[in-house]
Amino acid sequence: MAKQPILTPQADDFPRWYQDVVAKAELADNGPVRGTMVIRPYGYALWERMQAEVDLRIKAAGADNLYFPLFIPQGYLQREAEHVEGFSPELAVVTHAGGKELDEPLVVRPTSETVIGEYMGKWVQSYRDLPLLLNQWANVVRWELRPRLFLRTTEFLWQEGHTAHATAEDSAVYTERILHEVYADFMVNVLALPVLPGRKTAAERFPGAINTLTVEAMMGDGKALQMGTSHDLGQNFARVFDISYLDDQGATQLCWTTSWGVSTRMVGGLIMGHGDDAGLVVPPALAPIQAVVLLVRDEDGAGSAAELLVADLQTEGVKVRLDANVAASFGRRATDWELKGVPLRVEVGPRDLAEGHVTVVRRDTGEKLQVSVAEVATLVPVLLAEVQADILARATRRRDERTVDVTSLDEAVEAGKVGFARVPWDLVRDGGEARLAQDAVTVRCLQTADGGIPASEDEPDLVAYVARAY
Amino acid sequence: MAKQPILTPQADDFPRWYQDVVAKAELADNGPVRGTMVIRPYGYALWERMQAEVDLRIKAAGADNLYFPLFIPQGYLQREAEHVEGFSPELAVVTHAGGKELDEPLVVRPTSETVIGEYMGKWVQSYRDLPLLLNQWANVVRWELRPRLFLRTTEFLWQEGHTAHATAEDSAVYTERILHEVYADFMVNVLALPVLPGRKTAAERFPGAINTLTVEAMMGDGKALQMGTSHDLGQNFARVFDISYLDDQGATQLCWTTSWGVSTRMVGGLIMGHGDDAGLVVPPALAPIQAVVLLVRDEDGAGSAAELLVADLQTEGVKVRLDANVAASFGRRATDWELKGVPLRVEVGPRDLAEGHVTVVRRDTGEKLQVSVAEVATLVPVLLAEVQADILARATRRRDERTVDVTSLDEAVEAGKVGFARVPWDLVRDGGEARLAQDAVTVRCLQTADGGIPASEDEPDLVAYVARAY
Repeated sequence: MAKQPILTPQADDFPRWYQDVVAKAELADNGPVRGTMVIRPYGYALWERMQAEVDLRIKAAGADNLYFPLFIPQGYLQREAEHVEGFSPELAVVTHAGGKELDEPLVVRPTSETVIGEYMGKWVQSYRDLPLLLNQWANVVRWELRPRLFLRTTEFLWQEGHTAHATAEDSAVYTERILHEVYADFMVNVLALPVLPGRKTAAERFPGAINTLTVEAMMGDGKALQMGTSHDLGQNFARVFDISYLDDQGATQLCWTTSWGVSTRMVGGLIMGHGDDAGLVVPPALAPIQAVVLLVRDEDGAGSAAELLVADLQTEGVKVRLDANVAASFGRRATDWELKGVPLRVEVGPRDLAEGHVTVVRRDTGEKLQVSVAEVATLVPVLLAEVQADILARATRRRDERTVDVTSLDEAVEAGKVGFARVPWDLVRDGGEARLAQDAVTVRCLQTADGGIPASEDEPDLVAYVARAY
Repeated sequence: MAKQPILTPQADDFPRWYQDVVAKAELADNGPVRGTMVIRPYGYALWERMQAEVDLRIKAAGADNLYFPLFIPQGYLQREAEHVEGFSPELAVVTHAGGKELDEPLVVRPTSETVIGEYMGKWVQSYRDLPLLLNQWANVVRWELRPRLFLRTTEFLWQEGHTAHATAEDSAVYTERILHEVYADFMVNVLALPVLPGRKTAAERFPGAINTLTVEAMMGDGKALQMGTSHDLGQNFARVFDISYLDDQGATQLCWTTSWGVSTRMVGGLIMGHGDDAGLVVPPALAPIQAVVLLVRDEDGAGSAAELLVADLQTEGVKVRLDANVAASFGRRATDWELKGVPLRVEVGPRDLAEGHVTVVRRDTGEKLQVSVAEVATLVPVLLAEVQADILARATRRRDERTVDVTSLDEAVEAGKVGFARVPWDLVRDGGEARLAQDAVTVRCLQTADGGIPASEDEPDLVAYVARAY
């Protein structure tokens, strides 16, 4: 469409292309404090849609939303040794409040296992209180040295689920349930990203977890993005915060807990997972605007025809926006909606209308269809479903094309620089991760031979996915 | 219902009753840091419903959601003199992050006029960019010396709207539009609280505003609660942050800005505005659970009858919950649902069922109705509408009964100690507010004689509402 590219082409400089999209599609700006982010209305609308879809699935998995305080007494974080070691360098600390120096400094939450553990300890008394399934939507702060809008920011928005269970099996099953039914289901069916579910190696685990599960997506440049994680915390936090219960025999038992989260980082995954040289490509199931009715010129009744069409599309349940801003050039407006990745553009102009039709343009393929006015409203929902399926199919094809099976560490490094390498875990297991790290590639996750999630990294015949990552 | 009161009776000690409700209905706990709050699932469900209803109205008023960072450079707050003076003693300050002392301390936002002003200055260029209508849902921190759950907490959740306009008239109109179409409409029609809309006196204005509008509700003890405010900031912030635009003649003009907010404090208003000695009374339009189907005993098919009823009520669009926990005593469960203020209880027991009916109990009046099984699902929505109207009527009656017209400051003080006093503003205007403050009563708002909002406190014949307040 645009003769002069308004974005750096992906092939020239992918990171620059990313920055351009974030700025030109008005998704976010840098905040006033290094590493922070102002999420602009269109970027926030994408996040609100993600929240709504993830929240539905969290509630269906039985968890209740609630809210814990932003400030955590410093001492809480120090109680679990691995946890404090993992987070210490990243903390922001409040030392003064109400005009005075505080007796105990307060940490701005980097995550809430500790404070939620403290309250779970109070709330859980009997086996009847279990499982206790909680979730919160909140902001968290982790001081980042190399920030990048959406992908790695000092403050980000997320949900963090926290649950307590009576048995080791229950917590393991729930950790995996969240990964599949909440995260993978949302990412595949709404975000149209064919994520790989798998297990993190011990080296890549969350501080304090006995098992971390992950969903990994391939971005447009072949790099991996960790889209979400679900942690089985074993009894580590239960022991420290005394989360225990009386079983049905009256004996005191320690709980097993989990935690799991996805964040505004998913907006980065959406951009890099589907975007092209013209900007964002938003899957219809996620899109806050699924179709824009674009008035070409307000002549010969085209304006009222466009309004009627908008009403008809709303009746069909389509999230539609009217762009009747004819003072601005048609080409400029079309380019802007392309940039924002709106799945369908319905162009309504007097010339087309005189022949009884309008032009429908698919954002994902650029395909143009002449559609009779009478049929547009019923055709659009069908097209949206088609676009959704095609976007997923395209992302899956690209991922599969850029995933290669290799049989040595050196090959894994080479393939992992441009895509995903599938390598037998037995080749990596002892010292191999350090070797990979020298070339900035990492084991993204482990799977069983048939794509399942291993119960332990000691199982035989596991497959390691190796790649560079954001 | 309960023979032994589980709550301190309101008449004995209203503040204690409030604390009891918050604890026993499991709405919130004190956080680990003084003044902070853990909002528990049922309390959070009430807040989520408030958010959803307010958000709808904000979007209908044309504002877009977005998100600004939690941390504000200390220098930003110091730029507007009145603003810094108003907030300085309440600030929490981050001095260390990433393992180092920061060059410039960061303030944890107490409100975001300053940082949003900075970005509005960048985003607004031309008259075509106006009005710029923005809103964010966020947590804010104000160090409180006398915290109280929901009403006054160190950290609270809220929405803060921020808009920029081309003219003084536009910003004044929008400030009032938000008060009426978003806040008063939500509070009257959903919360069932007959709020008084009015203008704050100069002494009670937001730091930096030229006009503050408010909605004030009467609580069960006759005290006022400020439920929300909408501020016309004039050009004060526009001047400091250089929010200016080129008008259609090409001349540079300064903008006029507004800000407005409601918070988790509204949960406190809900509790104290409608609650009684048995606990919360939640209006059906707000209730996350509108009806609970309470299985008395699982005998003679009562269990499956209850399940069928739940399905039928869902079909009718009722937010319904099944309580089939027959292991716990029926009386205990009924009391718990009363405590939580669920508008209707549908009791399903084998004895009633044998006669073809169930018992429907209204939370607001205690009234019990025997209803034939076949009619329950169609009757419940009708009853819910009736309950909603009755709750509003009751609160309005109580407010009117406890509002008296007075003609002297002394009378205003006396009447203001137990309810609202309506006093001619001319009697208070010069020095009267200091006199009222001696008895801890304040002017809650000013209205015109016919209940309208004055454009200035200098208008003749204004009425001042005087009361004690939370």
